[in-house]
Amino acid sequence: MLDMQETAEPGSLATLTQRLVATRAHSLDLTAPLTPEDMVVQPMEDASPTKWHLAHVTWFFETFVLAKYLPGYRVFDETFNYCFNSYYETQGPRQPRPKRGVLSRPSTDRVLAYRAHVDDGLKALCACLGEQAAVVAPLLEVGINHEQQHQELLLTDVLALLAANPLRPAYSSAPLGAQADTALTADWVAFDGGIHRVGHGGSGFAWDNETPCHDALVHPFQLADRLVTKAEWLAFMADGAYDAPLLWLSDGWATVVREGWRAPLYWEEKDGVWLTMSLQGLNPVDPRAPVTHVSYYEADAFARWAGARLPTEFEWEVAAASQETGQPGGQAVSQAPRLRQLFGHAWQWTQSAYLPYPGYRPPAGALGEYNGKFMVSQQVLRGSSFATPEGHSRATYRNFFYPHQRWQFTGVRLAREI
Amino acid sequence: MLDMQETAEPGSLATLTQRLVATRAHSLDLTAPLTPEDMVVQPMEDASPTKWHLAHVTWFFETFVLAKYLPGYRVFDETFNYCFNSYYETQGPRQPRPKRGVLSRPSTDRVLAYRAHVDDGLKALCACLGEQAAVVAPLLEVGINHEQQHQELLLTDVLALLAANPLRPAYSSAPLGAQADTALTADWVAFDGGIHRVGHGGSGFAWDNETPCHDALVHPFQLADRLVTKAEWLAFMADGAYDAPLLWLSDGWATVVREGWRAPLYWEEKDGVWLTMSLQGLNPVDPRAPVTHVSYYEADAFARWAGARLPTEFEWEVAAASQETGQPGGQAVSQAPRLRQLFGHAWQWTQSAYLPYPGYRPPAGALGEYNGKFMVSQQVLRGSSFATPEGHSRATYRNFFYPHQRWQFTGVRLAREI
Amino acid sequence: MLDMQETAEPGSLATLTQRLVATRAHSLDLTAPLTPEDMVVQPMEDASPTKWHLAHVTWFFETFVLAKYLPGYRVFDETFNYCFNSYYETQGPRQPRPKRGVLSRPSTDRVLAYRAHVDDGLKALCACLGEQAAVVAPLLEVGINHEQQHQELLLTDVLALLAANPLRPAYSSAPLGAQADTALTADWVAFDGGIHRVGHGGSGFAWDNETPCHDALVHPFQLADRLVTKAEWLAFMADGAYDAPLLWLSDGWATVVREGWRAPLYWEEKDGVWLTMSLQGLNPVDPRAPVTHVSYYEADAFARWAGARLPTEFEWEVAAASQETGQPGGQAVSQAPRLRQLFGHAWQWTQSAYLPYPGYRPPAGALGEYNGKFMVSQQVLRGSSFATPEGHSRATYRNFFYPHQRWQFTGVRLAREI
Amino acid sequence: MLDMQETAEPGSLATLTQRLVATRAHSLDLTAPLTPEDMVVQPMEDASPTKWHLAHVTWFFETFVLAKYLPGYRVFDETFNYCFNSYYETQGPRQPRPKRGVLSRPSTDRVLAYRAHVDDGLKALCACLGEQAAVVAPLLEVGINHEQQHQELLLTDVLALLAANPLRPAYSSAPLGAQADTALTADWVAFDGGIHRVGHGGSGFAWDNETPCHDALVHPFQLADRLVTKAEWLAFMADGAYDAPLLWLSDGWATVVREGWRAPLYWEEKDGVWLTMSLQGLNPVDPRAPVTHVSYYEADAFARWAGARLPTEFEWEVAAASQETGQPGGQAVSQAPRLRQLFGHAWQWTQSAYLPYPGYRPPAGALGEYNGKFMVSQQVLRGSSFATPEGHSRATYRNFFYPHQRWQFTGVRLAREI
Repeated sequence: MLDMQETAEPGSLATLTQRLVATRAHSLDLTAPLTPEDMVVQPMEDASPTKWHLAHVTWFFETFVLAKYLPGYRVFDETFNYCFNSYYETQGPRQPRPKRGVLSRPSTDRVLAYRAHVDDGLKALCACLGEQAAVVAPLLEVGINHEQQHQELLLTDVLALLAANPLRPAYSSAPLGAQADTALTADWVAFDGGIHRVGHGGSGFAWDNETPCHDALVHPFQLADRLVTKAEWLAFMADGAYDAPLLWLSDGWATVVREGWRAPLYWEEKDGVWLTMSLQGLNPVDPRAPVTHVSYYEADAFARWAGARLPTEFEWEVAAASQETGQPGGQAVSQAPRLRQLFGHAWQWTQSAYLPYPGYRPPAGALGEYNGKFMVSQQVLRGSSFATPEGHSRATYRNFFYPHQRWQFTGVRLAREI
Repeated sequence: MLDMQETAEPGSLATLTQRLVATRAHSLDLTAPLTPEDMVVQPMEDASPTKWHLAHVTWFFETFVLAKYLPGYRVFDETFNYCFNSYYETQGPRQPRPKRGVLSRPSTDRVLAYRAHVDDGLKALCACLGEQAAVVAPLLEVGINHEQQHQELLLTDVLALLAANPLRPAYSSAPLGAQADTALTADWVAFDGGIHRVGHGGSGFAWDNETPCHDALVHPFQLADRLVTKAEWLAFMADGAYDAPLLWLSDGWATVVREGWRAPLYWEEKDGVWLTMSLQGLNPVDPRAPVTHVSYYEADAFARWAGARLPTEFEWEVAAASQETGQPGGQAVSQAPRLRQLFGHAWQWTQSAYLPYPGYRPPAGALGEYNGKFMVSQQVLRGSSFATPEGHSRATYRNFFYPHQRWQFTGVRLAREI
Repeated sequence: MLDMQETAEPGSLATLTQRLVATRAHSLDLTAPLTPEDMVVQPMEDASPTKWHLAHVTWFFETFVLAKYLPGYRVFDETFNYCFNSYYETQGPRQPRPKRGVLSRPSTDRVLAYRAHVDDGLKALCACLGEQAAVVAPLLEVGINHEQQHQELLLTDVLALLAANPLRPAYSSAPLGAQADTALTADWVAFDGGIHRVGHGGSGFAWDNETPCHDALVHPFQLADRLVTKAEWLAFMADGAYDAPLLWLSDGWATVVREGWRAPLYWEEKDGVWLTMSLQGLNPVDPRAPVTHVSYYEADAFARWAGARLPTEFEWEVAAASQETGQPGGQAVSQAPRLRQLFGHAWQWTQSAYLPYPGYRPPAGALGEYNGKFMVSQQVLRGSSFATPEGHSRATYRNFFYPHQRWQFTGVRLAREI
Repeated sequence: MLDMQETAEPGSLATLTQRLVATRAHSLDLTAPLTPEDMVVQPMEDASPTKWHLAHVTWFFETFVLAKYLPGYRVFDETFNYCFNSYYETQGPRQPRPKRGVLSRPSTDRVLAYRAHVDDGLKALCACLGEQAAVVAPLLEVGINHEQQHQELLLTDVLALLAANPLRPAYSSAPLGAQADTALTADWVAFDGGIHRVGHGGSGFAWDNETPCHDALVHPFQLADRLVTKAEWLAFMADGAYDAPLLWLSDGWATVVREGWRAPLYWEEKDGVWLTMSLQGLNPVDPRAPVTHVSYYEADAFARWAGARLPTEFEWEVAAASQETGQPGGQAVSQAPRLRQLFGHAWQWTQSAYLPYPGYRPPAGALGEYNGKFMVSQQVLRGSSFATPEGHSRATYRNFFYPHQRWQFTGVRLAREI
């Protein structure tokens, strides 16, 4: 029985194994610039240590795949279930999330040995799947996608770590971040209303929260063809937005006051110049790059200030789908400017709350806790960021965070009524 | 220009004045069982003192109506703007909400004098409206509805006060509360899907958050014909629900653990018997009465336990509208059991987040802060409670609270897919 | 057996009864300017409502005297033990201190009836003491002194209430507060060192924490002949003291930063003028009056700024005793300027921690909780304030508060080495 | 000018240099069992990472010695002042204490290079002291003693780290901890009262808070000849002490309830057996070993339960001095049992608050912040623990912690009146 939505296609097992190996290797690649000390520290409650990410995704494969489906599999270390279970109540008690950073032991070396042990198990499993393939392949796909999510989180949390360090060290000298767009001003792209199919219904992997595919009524709308830039955000700040309560949701304003917010996260002013901390270290704000590290409250206030609003998640999906197909699925006039920066730059806040789709059923078993139990008080984000692994983005993807959170690579695309 | 959605009908001015006078008087009637000491205490941050409610609604009329439209009106006391402004940033700084209970002064007597002063002003204004009627009448309507909301809050907060008192005093010996239903088991009523008009579009008053009237796509669904009872809640408790993390949303379970919830608010066990504190004092649980004082988290967990879910706000509205018209607006088969307890018992949590309708615009001016700035992180409740004043309920009404809040008269109606 | 240190002198019973009646009446006199609403509100966790004070001191007499020694005494209301027990673990559970302000019931009227009931009991008891006198008289004395303490707290807490009110109402137009001294500059009075008897050893009432009387070695010292004035405090502020971490104890500076302290409690700046809220309302600072409402942290920082220090409690006691006797008990040269403002102006912080005297034993029984269990983390204050009732001051009296607290009538007298 | 109390003896420079080198080397020795990851983690706010300790003591030498007295000294890294300043306001802003654990950079390697750089500087300085010796030697002595303090803290904080780890790893297999005493029952040793010289007055190093040496009046007392054992603590627990409010100071009981204390820190019950986490890992309680990791509140409650009390700091000092000299300085009868476990087992809570001695003056300059600014709300501990470096103990030594703290190696010695 499939836990997540996946069609096991014939002949894809080799590909799956290949992707599995590549995904596992990529996680380690990401840690290359880090010291063992970088990998153990938890810079804030929301963020997890690199080492924890590496171990947790491994525990996930061990617990939900190997322990169940690889005959004779030996659990690497019984104590790891406590250490590296994230939030699965079915799997028993666990290290409290705000205390993940005290786990100096098991050491990085031992976690790497854990990874190797589980990798061996996965390879052995893939080599002898046989009839189990229909059951196991989807779980492996879940595990791959799960590890990809943690690859993005790993970078997100590394930035939180480096930004919390008074030395403001860089993770890399390569240009890692949302890339600048060439257009000084954004254009509006119009989409017709109507009943559209939304959610995941085709082949390929999707999370349970993207299902079921269903009809949704969307009213005519316009989307900006690119993300809000840092130059635009500087104008918002210069206009006194962080001192103007009427621009904000009530909870947002209370947060601005309580937290003393004056700019996006990781921005700091030095001698009158705004700098931002990124994976490349502390550098002057690039005015043409998309703003990132803004909360929903800020995204919403910006939209209000700009005389616009945030898109709903279905507006975003319909518009993105129309671009993918090249067809006017969203009835975008084919000559109209195309939407840019949909994927690979920054997650885009929507005004939709993260709620179950009509008829949604969480998967049976432990993976039923994966997405469903978070469906309250959070907002949906669409698209993907530069930190999202290759192949992990799609138009139906639903990311979700609390409205005050801004340590993710979150940005803003504006919408408005026609 | 209308601040809220209201059609000023010809000849209705006398009626309006009459309703105004009656509403103002009713607020005082509600305080009859209370001592001056009861009226000043703030039992919890969410709740406000009775005296504050009495003064705030008066300040609302003074500030938004009399000061603007009654020539020569003299503000009763300039210091009251600070004391009794609730959350209007346009009206300047104000007594912090958690500190409303320190306002032993102005005294109750002075607040009563304030009310009389403003009542006089309102009568004078109504007597000479003339051409202003088109502008002022809708504002008076807003003020009436605003005061009605506070009449419910007043009772809600009085219960919080009396329940916090170790003597568990009663407000009244009259049966004030959600009334028992005769049916031991609930029946399901089915409704067809389709595109429905939702939101307020007709005549009569509505809040801005009920607009604009628009099309919504509703999928086929069923609603329980009555509210969840206390007997059913006792079964939920007896089944270990407050110890079963898998029944709960993640935030909900964290709240259960942190707050030590074992039952709805105001329930206490004594010698093995469950009692509930209500406006009639502390009494044994009435198994046939609707459960009240449950949070969204609890409502959601109950629904999951029951193999059902909470309705969306549009399902609720479509179903309620079909009952009102007597027509199968929701395509309820006319012979099917009717929905009971829609209004006048308990507010009903929906699984819809409180968000703006498509094309929503907050009113211009200060009243733009009334509803719009709260549109994040809260859930919509539909219907009305026994404490909702006569004439204040309708099918399109949107109440909203945070998912953890349970000091309101909140209950549960189940829904499910067909 | 005596619970507190008291010598029952022959023939003093009539006097005791008279004092008892007068003390009980005085508590009510203090409430004359207050409304029932004033009397129920708790403005901060440390402060208690007036009504609670009135009831608690009554409960004290009922519980520790009448219930034990008046034959046939009927407890007024069994529920009051929960409501009005302050902190006596032996007397069972109680209303949590921070929630005393939710007790709108029992009403003020009922509390007044409670007082009358207990007063009747006390009179009946005094009328028939007989052989019990040796046991009961000391308890009555404790009750009188306990009520006197609460008379001061009542005024202290009323000021906290009125100061928390945006209307800044006055309690009285009479000059209630620490009175100005005529001397612009303070003089130093020198005292010789040596072994001195300290603590209470004579006749008359004293609290257990003043005993046993014992020898203490005091080194030569000087005391300022008057309290620090508000003019001096303004100079301290003008010198940037609230921005100068090196002046402060580490805990003190952390408190200054966290709480944003810029001046003593109840001071506010308006158009460049410093005002203070007092029982007479909000008035310009009187430069010649003793500063009050300062924490130990502030007193200590002020002393450091002034090149002095705070006195130890024994220095203070030795000096005060020398003034009382007119003899150079502390070897004060008889021609030297006398110490002024020892009593009746403001409690004076000492650098002594509140600890048990050598050989201290708390009284047996419930009253053993009265003083002893607070002997950690607090500082001793000596003297008395303008709010201390007549007859409640003496040189051996030990008051105590936490170093951050400043809602009491606390002031500063400087000391230094010779 | 001497910052701390130190007599520079002729010919001692070589010894000083030797001790300096040995002390610096010992710090590194202590880290041998630790991984780089162990060394970066901050397990709780009170504790600091190992790496931070290593760097901070180095910064101390660099800032207060090398930068001032070694000509041409080059500061290793200007950013380290921010990272490794502990609490010196004179040295500018610093990494907040609760955030020391986010400093994954500078890396351990770089900190080790920092140590080598400063060690080189110190050697160069010692080689050419000349006339500066009178000034510099005392500062080097301060630096040595400062580093010794951090050696103890390093072990204390390592235990906190390992105890916070669900794997409960051991630091060492060697018997590191307070050692068992052979006597099943403690004996009382009596000391006469009288005026004694207390505080540091002789040669050798002492902290400023041990001065000035002065007369103190001590009343006759008795001390237990050994520390309270874990067997005795188990009896205290078995007698319900953690459920008996009357045994506790009021603040202590509030802490017991709030924190859920049932036993000393690091104790855990497993299958009915009490285990303690120590540097040797998790092992069954050794009944004969001194109890450690108890707060002042617990020490005080234990003493009350045992019908005794805690000693004052002067009682402890007088008694210890009498043992050192072999003379009955405290008039201990020479035949009486000697006091055991004074040093090298566990710090011993006293009932004395940490306050300045009569005539105390903090050192001039930055080191004036070393001890003086903490003189409020803390209790003095005397003796030393097994983790205290060789040569760092003496009878006049004053350690100090807040009454709720128990992550230090703190134990209990009883006292009582004669």
